Amino acid sequence: MRPRYTVVASLSRLHRTFLTAPSSSDEGFDFIFYMTNKAKSINKALNDAVPLCNNPLVLKIHEAMRYTLLSGGKRVRPMLCLAACELVGGQESTAVPGACAVEMIHASSLIQDDLPCMDDDSLRRGKPTNHKVFGEDIAVLTADALIALAVKKLASSTSFGVSPERVLRAVLEMAKAVGTEGLVAGQAADLAGEGMSLEENEVGLKHLEFIHIHKTAALLEAAAVIGAIIGGGSDEEIERLRRYARCTGLMFQVVDDVLDVTKSSEELGKTAGKDLIAGKMTYPRVMGVEKSREYAEKLNREAREHLQGFDSNKVAPLLSLADYIVNRQN
Amino acid sequence: MRPRYTVVASLSRLHRTFLTAPSSSDEGFDFIFYMTNKAKSINKALNDAVPLCNNPLVLKIHEAMRYTLLSGGKRVRPMLCLAACELVGGQESTAVPGACAVEMIHASSLIQDDLPCMDDDSLRRGKPTNHKVFGEDIAVLTADALIALAVKKLASSTSFGVSPERVLRAVLEMAKAVGTEGLVAGQAADLAGEGMSLEENEVGLKHLEFIHIHKTAALLEAAAVIGAIIGGGSDEEIERLRRYARCTGLMFQVVDDVLDVTKSSEELGKTAGKDLIAGKMTYPRVMGVEKSREYAEKLNREAREHLQGFDSNKVAPLLSLADYIVNRQN
Repeated sequence: MRPRYTVVASLSRLHRTFLTAPSSSDEGFDFIFYMTNKAKSINKALNDAVPLCNNPLVLKIHEAMRYTLLSGGKRVRPMLCLAACELVGGQESTAVPGACAVEMIHASSLIQDDLPCMDDDSLRRGKPTNHKVFGEDIAVLTADALIALAVKKLASSTSFGVSPERVLRAVLEMAKAVGTEGLVAGQAADLAGEGMSLEENEVGLKHLEFIHIHKTAALLEAAAVIGAIIGGGSDEEIERLRRYARCTGLMFQVVDDVLDVTKSSEELGKTAGKDLIAGKMTYPRVMGVEKSREYAEKLNREAREHLQGFDSNKVAPLLSLADYIVNRQN
Repeated sequence: MRPRYTVVASLSRLHRTFLTAPSSSDEGFDFIFYMTNKAKSINKALNDAVPLCNNPLVLKIHEAMRYTLLSGGKRVRPMLCLAACELVGGQESTAVPGACAVEMIHASSLIQDDLPCMDDDSLRRGKPTNHKVFGEDIAVLTADALIALAVKKLASSTSFGVSPERVLRAVLEMAKAVGTEGLVAGQAADLAGEGMSLEENEVGLKHLEFIHIHKTAALLEAAAVIGAIIGGGSDEEIERLRRYARCTGLMFQVVDDVLDVTKSSEELGKTAGKDLIAGKMTYPRVMGVEKSREYAEKLNREAREHLQGFDSNKVAPLLSLADYIVNRQN
């Protein structure tokens, strides 16, 4: 059997996406090469961050952390963090702990979203979900352990010469993205929206935007903002990258919703159509597939506008990332 | 019905403890008055930290946070944080955010420990557990929200004039206490120890110490260390308070285990004998009730020794706290 859901496979899918989908930004910029390189340095750093320790009482948690953290994924959030750092003139290496931290938070949220009391999902990136392999108790603890390690990792950025003021500001951004101003609020709203009647869906766009601004965009926003803070960006640069990432995050979710109803489980590497089955509100359900696609394009244009103040030679990775997200097929 | 499990009731139980139990340290020091005062300022700060917001999608999480955070408890950890800050010469007010943060982490761990996939408990401080009231999904999110708010709260200590270096160091201590060097490791070891055979229990003391060093002592240690860091303590002072808190934390758990087998649910305000039913390893099970009591006394003596380098006029709160823990009846 092919190892379909490793990072290499994710990047190979990324490659296919770019071979088949129209692209408008990558004149002379090799996004696949860039993304592959960033993913490599992130994967190495993530692997080093969670060693397999000798204590059998902690080993199981470390194995469970590694299971989700190192099971593929396109590393979009870390890449965004590194790219934002470099865009404001910082060294990539200083943002690696922050980029790892953001991916740990993401992995933690995936473990929780899949729990029986949440979305009750058994498949993630083509593999059994964390609680299916390690048990629900260990999965819950693993999610905590990833949040704690993320805080620790990000807080350790001072050892790369970043000032404590900036690191603390980055820690605050990350905490905001996790709690009731971010992921928690998004997931709570998502759960509250399940099984809502069609009447409610007609006025459901506001609710839907709330879910995705918090559940998806908040962490992409944190990734970009943390990168920009660590990289030494000005307040204006940080806020511009925040707005870019918010548009990109919302766009990511609109595309995700469209893929959920237009692709198979095989193509997606996760259960297709599950939002429909769970009675969840999605963009296709509220505005139809075509209008959802148009909305994603509009968000892509807005995201690009927020990048206009930056050096046009340096902005290619983020322009290409937005194009990749809007054109992705899985 | 009497409101038995409010903070006032907790402190009234504390009062009874001191009226009935022998005490050796409080010559001229009014521990009840001290503890009541500290609990008051902490309760006010905790109440302010989680307002009931207008957004109905976030309101439920805020209600669930408040339900556990403000449902009584003796505020031992925050008191330890404030006392450590003052002992090293800091102002109490600068340590209030840190003290709140530690209590938020504690509340988060209580919610998680009670989940069906963990200890599956329905009673906590005489009230239905968080997931019984709000549902399992909201309880899991609430635990996250409390961790995120704790990080945010502690990180905001700079607004009280504490240097970013010290705040960052405190954040690192807190993250350590939450993850695989603290609560997560303790709970994982606790779950792994359930239903172990008696043969295993005979060599189980090391396992038991591991559980409690991580599950209980780590957070008490973080409370004291965070207070000492925020208060401007020297490295030596910080480490002395760390060792004091570790002994006190272990002692706390030894006493807890003894109470679990010698008191009724009514007296404890939580399900009595549940460790026995769950087949958990406890000190009474490994070494018997009498030897457990002697061990607690030994830990109290050790805790006091670690305080010997400090100003004897300022050390009364922490001496009294250790006495209170070893003599408590619930």
